[in-house]
Amino acid sequence: MRMVDIIAKKRDNGELTKEEIQYFIDGYTKGDIPDYQASALLMAVFFNDMTQTERAELTMAMVKSGDEIDLSAISGVKVDKHSTGGVGDTTTLVLAPLVAALDVPVAKMSGRGLGHTGGTIDKLEAVEGFHVEITDKEFTDIVNRDKVAVIGQSGNLTPADKKIYALRDVTATVNSIPLIASSIMSKKIASGADAIVLDVKTGDGAFMKHEEDAVALAEAMVSIGNNVGRNTMAIISSMSEPLGYAIGNALEVKEAIETLKGEGPEDLTRLCLELGAQMAVLGGAAESLVEAKEKLQAVIDDGQALEKFKTFLKNQGGDPTVVDDVSRLPKADYQYEVKSKESGFVEEIRAEEIGIASAMLGAGRQTKEDVIDLAVGLVLKKKVGDPVEVGETLAVIHSNTEDVSEVEAKILKDYKIGSNKVNIELVRQVITG
Amino acid sequence: MRMVDIIAKKRDNGELTKEEIQYFIDGYTKGDIPDYQASALLMAVFFNDMTQTERAELTMAMVKSGDEIDLSAISGVKVDKHSTGGVGDTTTLVLAPLVAALDVPVAKMSGRGLGHTGGTIDKLEAVEGFHVEITDKEFTDIVNRDKVAVIGQSGNLTPADKKIYALRDVTATVNSIPLIASSIMSKKIASGADAIVLDVKTGDGAFMKHEEDAVALAEAMVSIGNNVGRNTMAIISSMSEPLGYAIGNALEVKEAIETLKGEGPEDLTRLCLELGAQMAVLGGAAESLVEAKEKLQAVIDDGQALEKFKTFLKNQGGDPTVVDDVSRLPKADYQYEVKSKESGFVEEIRAEEIGIASAMLGAGRQTKEDVIDLAVGLVLKKKVGDPVEVGETLAVIHSNTEDVSEVEAKILKDYKIGSNKVNIELVRQVITG
Repeated sequence: MRMVDIIAKKRDNGELTKEEIQYFIDGYTKGDIPDYQASALLMAVFFNDMTQTERAELTMAMVKSGDEIDLSAISGVKVDKHSTGGVGDTTTLVLAPLVAALDVPVAKMSGRGLGHTGGTIDKLEAVEGFHVEITDKEFTDIVNRDKVAVIGQSGNLTPADKKIYALRDVTATVNSIPLIASSIMSKKIASGADAIVLDVKTGDGAFMKHEEDAVALAEAMVSIGNNVGRNTMAIISSMSEPLGYAIGNALEVKEAIETLKGEGPEDLTRLCLELGAQMAVLGGAAESLVEAKEKLQAVIDDGQALEKFKTFLKNQGGDPTVVDDVSRLPKADYQYEVKSKESGFVEEIRAEEIGIASAMLGAGRQTKEDVIDLAVGLVLKKKVGDPVEVGETLAVIHSNTEDVSEVEAKILKDYKIGSNKVNIELVRQVITG
Repeated sequence: MRMVDIIAKKRDNGELTKEEIQYFIDGYTKGDIPDYQASALLMAVFFNDMTQTERAELTMAMVKSGDEIDLSAISGVKVDKHSTGGVGDTTTLVLAPLVAALDVPVAKMSGRGLGHTGGTIDKLEAVEGFHVEITDKEFTDIVNRDKVAVIGQSGNLTPADKKIYALRDVTATVNSIPLIASSIMSKKIASGADAIVLDVKTGDGAFMKHEEDAVALAEAMVSIGNNVGRNTMAIISSMSEPLGYAIGNALEVKEAIETLKGEGPEDLTRLCLELGAQMAVLGGAAESLVEAKEKLQAVIDDGQALEKFKTFLKNQGGDPTVVDDVSRLPKADYQYEVKSKESGFVEEIRAEEIGIASAMLGAGRQTKEDVIDLAVGLVLKKKVGDPVEVGETLAVIHSNTEDVSEVEAKILKDYKIGSNKVNIELVRQVITG
């Protein structure tokens, strides 16, 4: 087999065989196939796409390129959730205890990552004492007993994906559905998931600006998952404005607690019920999405979900009393209300830009070395569709620096106020494969 | 400027600017831009093509990447000819003295190269004493006085093209019209040509199997030439059977002499007149192609072309008496007649395979280190359209080894004999830009 023939085949719109895909992934991971042949193939894939079979083979070849996490010691169907990334996305903090309250095991592997706010682990560390430095045995035992735990990523997961991802970034081949889908799915599968729920964001604040692209990506991932024996479902959700009110680490923990009490933002609650229902069905806790939503609502109403969050925190060294007294969470020194200079309706909140405003306060990392300020961030007071008067508060800046004029100006620019009452449909499509 | 943005622009079918193309060529030649970005761009060009302006800019950027030969000391319009490569292509040996006989300067830079037979220099070395080790000054003086000389390639010509060509070979991006056209034209222009005549082959024995591809390549090259101020014309000629009768080095010299006497094969003579006419028009020796052909025929008829060949050989140390006594050329030990086992008409002679048969005898190089046997080769006795009886000779094998059974069997397989009298139209199109 020769790599140049594999490139030519894809260039001429042929379907690569399992053996050809494995030859590429193995050779590239080992360094036997040079970057310049890999990038030529990736560009050919960009133009000619991959069939469903090719995508599944590519995904599994990347999974096999490194370690695979074995979660078989945990009983039940391990359902993982993945979001393609948005602004103010607190869903994981809510979903972990919520779904665990239905006895679906949530064995979450998470990272810190770069972005407008920290990753799930950073956010949880806003709770004093919480840590993810637990052994694999502790992790397994906790999930078997209490159904929920979070651990840091370990092992040499999908090295082929890491190498290909880095190459795509410098060769203008990032934006390719089969390559994005196989990258995400390979990481989830290597992390040991039996079933996967995907939250694919669309809109201004998302990687996929256009809904048809988000749908294509979701369908690609659902197809890959089901082709390789992992039940997979997806939601297409709007990222036309930030999700919920809070953007920031401790602020999002507070919002998660409110949501688990049934007092959270409407959009965040709605999305958590949709995603949670899919997780419950895949995890075998309900027969249908309707039944699953009823069960999830019930554990919110009777306090079991909130109780599960306390147990979750306590199991990993966290102070569970924050759940009843959120004032124990880190607090920023200054709160500054951003007041509207116009009257009308909020027509648009530029999600991506609001995320950047939060990062300017110190809530996120630009480089791996940056230290996150867990206390800072933004709390929106007005969302799209809300009426607003001159002088009314649009958002509250939580800052540890006194001068926030730049952030304030940015937020005012990112709110578009006009005469139209716009209605955002949050959950746009449900894709069940 | 960032290379990744240039790749993305071409990927999205944008037109690259002169500055962007120069940035790529300069950076890649220097090694600042890595192979993996170059190959991604080349694959994007494969899919999205280049505009005429981009092709011209790419060509000139490659010309500027290295040395440019200065032929300004030679008076007159220096017309160069390039063939995309065929089997038994003796045209250069005929055209050099033929066109020089009309006082058009032929200052030919040539190489040895790989292939079924040797390059132009190898073939001429079949004439005892002939050599190309002459100084630039001698070269210039000879051409100014006698209008024709051949010198070996020297200098660091188009290093960008060399690097890109090597990369294309291993990344399945060879077969791209803008890349092929700019590669050929950059070498011709860097070699100092004022005007260029192209012989683009099509058919079984050619790189371009389909005529529409050959036309597209020819049009691309004519457009590049004219865009950068080099008058350029092209012929699309058939390579559905070998050109002329002879395939082999000394054998082709003999055939060239016969052709210069007006006694050569019909197809070779025809093509030399067509190409020579274009060279004569571009070189200012005739107003029209019709006038040029008449003048060329006249110098064949009155012996001036043959006389010019003698002068050409003598000027570079070669024995001019071979022209009147071709038995002085190297001769193979064995001649073996390949006899037909069928009756009918020759319907097809697989040119590429006949070339391989010649190489099997030792007439060509597979690697740079191979030593060519100048005496060996094939002389076809039957061409497409000829009637043939069982036992009649199809071709004569000239060999220095006794056992030629393998080559004989191959030739019999490469001749297709049937009941149809096929007529090959040799000169298929003339492209004058």
